[in-house]
Amino acid sequence: MLYLTRRETFNAGHRLFRPDWTDEENENLYGKCSNPHWHGHNYVLYITVKGNVNPETGLVVNLKTLGKLIREHIIEKIDHMNINTQVGFMKGRIASSENIAIAIWEELEPRIKGAGVKLHCVKIVETENNYVEFYGKE
Amino acid sequence: MLYLTRRETFNAGHRLFRPDWTDEENENLYGKCSNPHWHGHNYVLYITVKGNVNPETGLVVNLKTLGKLIREHIIEKIDHMNINTQVGFMKGRIASSENIAIAIWEELEPRIKGAGVKLHCVKIVETENNYVEFYGKE
Amino acid sequence: MLYLTRRETFNAGHRLFRPDWTDEENENLYGKCSNPHWHGHNYVLYITVKGNVNPETGLVVNLKTLGKLIREHIIEKIDHMNINTQVGFMKGRIASSENIAIAIWEELEPRIKGAGVKLHCVKIVETENNYVEFYGKE
Amino acid sequence: MLYLTRRETFNAGHRLFRPDWTDEENENLYGKCSNPHWHGHNYVLYITVKGNVNPETGLVVNLKTLGKLIREHIIEKIDHMNINTQVGFMKGRIASSENIAIAIWEELEPRIKGAGVKLHCVKIVETENNYVEFYGKE
Amino acid sequence: MLYLTRRETFNAGHRLFRPDWTDEENENLYGKCSNPHWHGHNYVLYITVKGNVNPETGLVVNLKTLGKLIREHIIEKIDHMNINTQVGFMKGRIASSENIAIAIWEELEPRIKGAGVKLHCVKIVETENNYVEFYGKE
Amino acid sequence: MLYLTRRETFNAGHRLFRPDWTDEENENLYGKCSNPHWHGHNYVLYITVKGNVNPETGLVVNLKTLGKLIREHIIEKIDHMNINTQVGFMKGRIASSENIAIAIWEELEPRIKGAGVKLHCVKIVETENNYVEFYGKE
Repeated sequence: MLYLTRRETFNAGHRLFRPDWTDEENENLYGKCSNPHWHGHNYVLYITVKGNVNPETGLVVNLKTLGKLIREHIIEKIDHMNINTQVGFMKGRIASSENIAIAIWEELEPRIKGAGVKLHCVKIVETENNYVEFYGKE
Repeated sequence: MLYLTRRETFNAGHRLFRPDWTDEENENLYGKCSNPHWHGHNYVLYITVKGNVNPETGLVVNLKTLGKLIREHIIEKIDHMNINTQVGFMKGRIASSENIAIAIWEELEPRIKGAGVKLHCVKIVETENNYVEFYGKE
Repeated sequence: MLYLTRRETFNAGHRLFRPDWTDEENENLYGKCSNPHWHGHNYVLYITVKGNVNPETGLVVNLKTLGKLIREHIIEKIDHMNINTQVGFMKGRIASSENIAIAIWEELEPRIKGAGVKLHCVKIVETENNYVEFYGKE
Repeated sequence: MLYLTRRETFNAGHRLFRPDWTDEENENLYGKCSNPHWHGHNYVLYITVKGNVNPETGLVVNLKTLGKLIREHIIEKIDHMNINTQVGFMKGRIASSENIAIAIWEELEPRIKGAGVKLHCVKIVETENNYVEFYGKE
Repeated sequence: MLYLTRRETFNAGHRLFRPDWTDEENENLYGKCSNPHWHGHNYVLYITVKGNVNPETGLVVNLKTLGKLIREHIIEKIDHMNINTQVGFMKGRIASSENIAIAIWEELEPRIKGAGVKLHCVKIVETENNYVEFYGKE
Repeated sequence: MLYLTRRETFNAGHRLFRPDWTDEENENLYGKCSNPHWHGHNYVLYITVKGNVNPETGLVVNLKTLGKLIREHIIEKIDHMNINTQVGFMKGRIASSENIAIAIWEELEPRIKGAGVKLHCVKIVETENNYVEFYGKE
């Protein structure tokens, strides 16, 4: 069993808030991350898959296939976008790194299975000082 | 003559666009950086000052004084803000890294002179792949 | 189950040695890390907690709460200090990264539990070439 | 149980290909990584061992012992070499990061056991955008 | 006058040697960098241009134009290639970082002038421990 | 004219203080950096030399020669040492990054001239948030 990780980056805008709360209530909980005028980040995304090394190729999975999946289904939909209002797979979710990681897992998990390996971890680095990791629901 | 650099970071939202152009004209020039729904970055700011080493203290300038100046006059006004709509010193300027660097120079230059050293360079890193440096108008 | 990591940094002095050994015996084991005149490092501390995402907030834990806990109970007590002689929670322990990680776990584990999540990992990066990770005693 | 990681680097040349395939077949699978004229990387190697902290020393294992093992058995044999043609422990293996990690595991695992700790992970960073981790065959 | 820098990366193979010297003579001068079987690096390329900020656009130069120039004339010709034998603009030059920087300057300088700005610096990072910078011949 | 930079690292202990001041006076000026029990840093040293590319070798200077000079005259004397009390070339100087850079310049400048190139810059990175650069006294 070998783990292979692909890094991709995206820049996006967001705001932490619940639409059913007032700006004041949101600010009490989320602080300046709830600024109604939006702010954003250079997000770094790490996708880790696991699988056996194919003895025919020496690879777990073709990096180009994996990179293409991530760019097509995630990066093209979120890069330079407003995560709260423009990203389909984040609709109805609070735009936290936690929820971004879970949503990316749900988008990629079946597609990566289709490529013959198992998604192991989605890691989202929001700033140099904080990141989240999601390993699926089991 | 010695150069001392202080690094600070801020997260902010922005959009590259001219208000007197249509969204389409803006997109032709700025591409996805002109998304009307905003996006953002983890900006890294490097402030370089130059001066002689004070033989009494071994320092060019007290780092705490310099850090406080940068945080008070720049970071507190731009961090987690929308650069286009919420940052006083960017009012009327296109929110490019170039203009952010020039505006920060104008904010800091007289204040740093007041601390006994000379501002040498304002560097703004927008993403891991691009940054700008401004050395003043001379 | 989601994992959230907060990074903090501290600079400190230390020396690897056992007070019941001679300087020579210490140097035989620890080499130049045992220099009796002290040296130091820019330590990087990663605190990883795990928990479920609160559906009300989209968060595992409020990062500000977590950051405050780490700074109040660890950083303020160790930053710019001599780990061997000035840090209460290191008293009686050899000042290795291993022991620093274990001591920080012991300081933070009950407090993080009080914040509603579980401490998962304490990681201490001593130099760019070595780090330790402690996941608790189970 | 504590985990200790040592980082080492090496520069090497390689080519992804199977000698029993034509250049065209290799290029179909491996793309430009199969260039018959070779290319190379600045590889970064992370060796993680696990063990209990020795209460006599405060250490899991002496870092100098660990570093010496890695340099003697891995770095000196692969640094500035052609992985396909000059590295004994890669003979007969496709020169993928996956296989490099497995081969390094096989070289180091018994030697690290001899130093009193257990090899936990071999991580190979090939570029800033991809890396593999191998945790052994169990 | 503002300076804008674009970062690009490429992986390539090379060998430091003079074809008119024996392998032994080459090794005496270049050490293991002269290995006849090739090795390689993850090179990082920084291209710095200087110019005035266009008040119409807030930009020194369009980053997309600059990036396209660098990728088309440099990266596509050197990435995953053998610098000694496969890169046209390195023909007849010893494959040192110094010469790569000078050759890239010669390739890009007239093209960047055509884009309305002035090439200021070509920086080549060969490993984390060494890099070169070329500012042109004046 | 080409600039070549070599990076080296060292860990050391220090304290900012003037021996002719009281601890209280020192703390007023230097804050926690004046802790009488010492603290320390992972310093990063960048030595930049300038020279013409030797057309016989493609090099400005042999990196091994340069690295050896830096390690022999600087790193071996300062690594894992107490900068205030154990480093000959810092004797009588306040142990600030500014003074370390100047002292290293004085140690290396004549020796690097002896190797046929000119020392251009000594850069000392004390933490990820601050560094100094010294270009000599002219």
